[in-house]
Amino acid sequence: MRLSQNFTRTLKEAPADEVARNAQLLIRAGFVYKVMAGVYAYTPLGLRVIEKIKQIVREEMNGLGGQELIMTNLQAKEPWAMTTRWDEKVVDIWFKTKLQDGTELGLAWSHEEAILDMMRQYIKSYKDLPVKVYQFQTKLRNEVRAKSGIMRGREFLMKDMYSLHSSVEDLDAFYQETIEAYMRAYKRMGIGDDTYVTFASGGAFTKFSHEFQTVCEVGEDTIYLHRGKNIAVNEEVLNDGTLAELGIAREELEEVKSVEVGNIFNFGTEKCEQMQIYFTDNEGQQHPAYLGSYGIGISRMMGILVEKFADDRGIIWPESVAPAKVYLVRIGGDEATAEADRLYDELQTKGIEVIYDDRDERPGVKFADAELMGIPYRVTVSDRNLAEGKYEFTTRNSGETILLTHDDLLAKLS
Amino acid sequence: MRLSQNFTRTLKEAPADEVARNAQLLIRAGFVYKVMAGVYAYTPLGLRVIEKIKQIVREEMNGLGGQELIMTNLQAKEPWAMTTRWDEKVVDIWFKTKLQDGTELGLAWSHEEAILDMMRQYIKSYKDLPVKVYQFQTKLRNEVRAKSGIMRGREFLMKDMYSLHSSVEDLDAFYQETIEAYMRAYKRMGIGDDTYVTFASGGAFTKFSHEFQTVCEVGEDTIYLHRGKNIAVNEEVLNDGTLAELGIAREELEEVKSVEVGNIFNFGTEKCEQMQIYFTDNEGQQHPAYLGSYGIGISRMMGILVEKFADDRGIIWPESVAPAKVYLVRIGGDEATAEADRLYDELQTKGIEVIYDDRDERPGVKFADAELMGIPYRVTVSDRNLAEGKYEFTTRNSGETILLTHDDLLAKLS
Repeated sequence: MRLSQNFTRTLKEAPADEVARNAQLLIRAGFVYKVMAGVYAYTPLGLRVIEKIKQIVREEMNGLGGQELIMTNLQAKEPWAMTTRWDEKVVDIWFKTKLQDGTELGLAWSHEEAILDMMRQYIKSYKDLPVKVYQFQTKLRNEVRAKSGIMRGREFLMKDMYSLHSSVEDLDAFYQETIEAYMRAYKRMGIGDDTYVTFASGGAFTKFSHEFQTVCEVGEDTIYLHRGKNIAVNEEVLNDGTLAELGIAREELEEVKSVEVGNIFNFGTEKCEQMQIYFTDNEGQQHPAYLGSYGIGISRMMGILVEKFADDRGIIWPESVAPAKVYLVRIGGDEATAEADRLYDELQTKGIEVIYDDRDERPGVKFADAELMGIPYRVTVSDRNLAEGKYEFTTRNSGETILLTHDDLLAKLS
Repeated sequence: MRLSQNFTRTLKEAPADEVARNAQLLIRAGFVYKVMAGVYAYTPLGLRVIEKIKQIVREEMNGLGGQELIMTNLQAKEPWAMTTRWDEKVVDIWFKTKLQDGTELGLAWSHEEAILDMMRQYIKSYKDLPVKVYQFQTKLRNEVRAKSGIMRGREFLMKDMYSLHSSVEDLDAFYQETIEAYMRAYKRMGIGDDTYVTFASGGAFTKFSHEFQTVCEVGEDTIYLHRGKNIAVNEEVLNDGTLAELGIAREELEEVKSVEVGNIFNFGTEKCEQMQIYFTDNEGQQHPAYLGSYGIGISRMMGILVEKFADDRGIIWPESVAPAKVYLVRIGGDEATAEADRLYDELQTKGIEVIYDDRDERPGVKFADAELMGIPYRVTVSDRNLAEGKYEFTTRNSGETILLTHDDLLAKLS
């Protein structure tokens, strides 16, 4: 991408009404545009990050045998009434609207009921199970407050997976596989070492649900961490019974601030009983199916990565989700321009993604923008260094700058 | 994809309330699920087609220098009030909803106002123009009736592009380039020969807008076609003035049924004046920017391809958008199974997409499903033909079946 052709501009200041650091930085760097509180558009730079996070999650869900589909925003009342969740006293974040004939519709804030209502058509026999489906869906939630930037918006992108099984053992095994797939995804996004499977309060069927919590200074949550066993406990279930069950002692736990980066639920047969999803076993008996539900907020994850890694100069993207690997800066006259143009083409030909700062701006402006945007590596082509056959190579994370020959530069980037 | 692991099932009958042939076939083949009238979910098979159509359109938009982004569903009143389009007497298909504090919000049915409201932040000078942005967005439209299946839904996926320019000449040139890119996209989707740039009524700024109309028996529209000049005229502008301007005579025109597969608008400076998008020219003077808007309904396109090509046995996908190139059928015992498993892996390794019917079903059921799903080529591995080292190769479109050796089969599919 040539910056001269990108319509966003970096900003010195975020909008005065934006209080979340993630959104402040993303707006200033030109990755998101604030439409209203809790509602953000993603510019070409921001969409690239979203797509990279999606692709990591997609690969892990496919690895579990998940099948990608896409459900709908518009929801009819009937399926949700079967679980009481249509009622705004039960779910207080619905956006609702009406057809022209007055029929009330909801806008999906989750999809358990929608998926199960569809699955009733397809699941008849134990031979039809298991089913594992997921989607990347825009969810709408009528939050009273929206002060966390893209970490908790009124409109956001989520990966939600649903699995249906014929036995509790099959659900439990898949649930465990999903925990491992989630941990792989976090590792690929650079937060593996700081992310913990966290025991939280369960539902009617299981004692615990599981959250994935990442240690983060600006954390919304407090968790109690056992670094040795790589697990954590949410405050709400921190009691002697839980500690005994997990085989840990209270004094081994460390209290840390954290943010939730995913959560998974074992609904047992409760939801399928409510939604009338029954299958016939191999002896002709009817049973309700077992349901698991597994969420990762995609846009939320983008916000968390900003919060976790940013420094006082701007964003620092993990390489796996960065909108480009290289920020190419051109400084100087015709010779530097010609060489930067050539290098831009060369890197792209080799499949290395580049943001090329081909603008007529001062070097200081370009360097500051490279840092604000958080691109992992900056390569600077200048007349002075070209005379010695060298390129300046700066790592965003460490700030270290070295001079490299053409061959060494390509070796570093390949 | 192994069919044994796909959760959808083909159906003998479509739901009784589904009147559109495209949706009837897509539901029966397991590509879509009807949530309610005009609202359809896309199953893994259906999503594959959607993604292929998106990718063709994406490549053509990128070729125009378009930058992909993603706007929001939730819309505030203020930008839309600037053009009067918030008013339900002006736009009668709004879905509206409310924040918890009572603030009225709309759900986006289009995005001109949203894009321009954002661009006001970024466009200051003639140097900031042109801007060409596009998105694939779920649009919600509160249609009174929804009887056209996925061709005209209440929730649907659309590619919409917007371009802003500093001069009418620049807009006109880009508008013409877009016409050519649209025609390339239609050609790639197999409807190039039957799709015509059609002159329709314009707005305040231009005499004509342009629709892209594809000849189709079940057409919603009637157009007057000049095959020699590859253009058509919409009934609403068919008059002596138009004929003279286009240099065609009424008796050269053929009346045909057609469906709209895209439309583009030249708004001139009207919208930017309403939305206060002004830029400074190189002499310091302020001018409103010029706006073009360019739409292709992605899910609509999927429905149109079904309507246009299906026969009495089911869907016939153009190869470029088919969910797979090959429908692999296994008939017989262990030997055929082993060979079909091997061929499935081999084709996939070569990058050829395969739906593998590994179900324990009768051959007749498998053949009927292959036809209903509309996969371009069926390859049948049977004990009988294997004995002679042959594979049955059936073309969906022609129905022709031939026997091929392994090498000839691979040559056909590569």
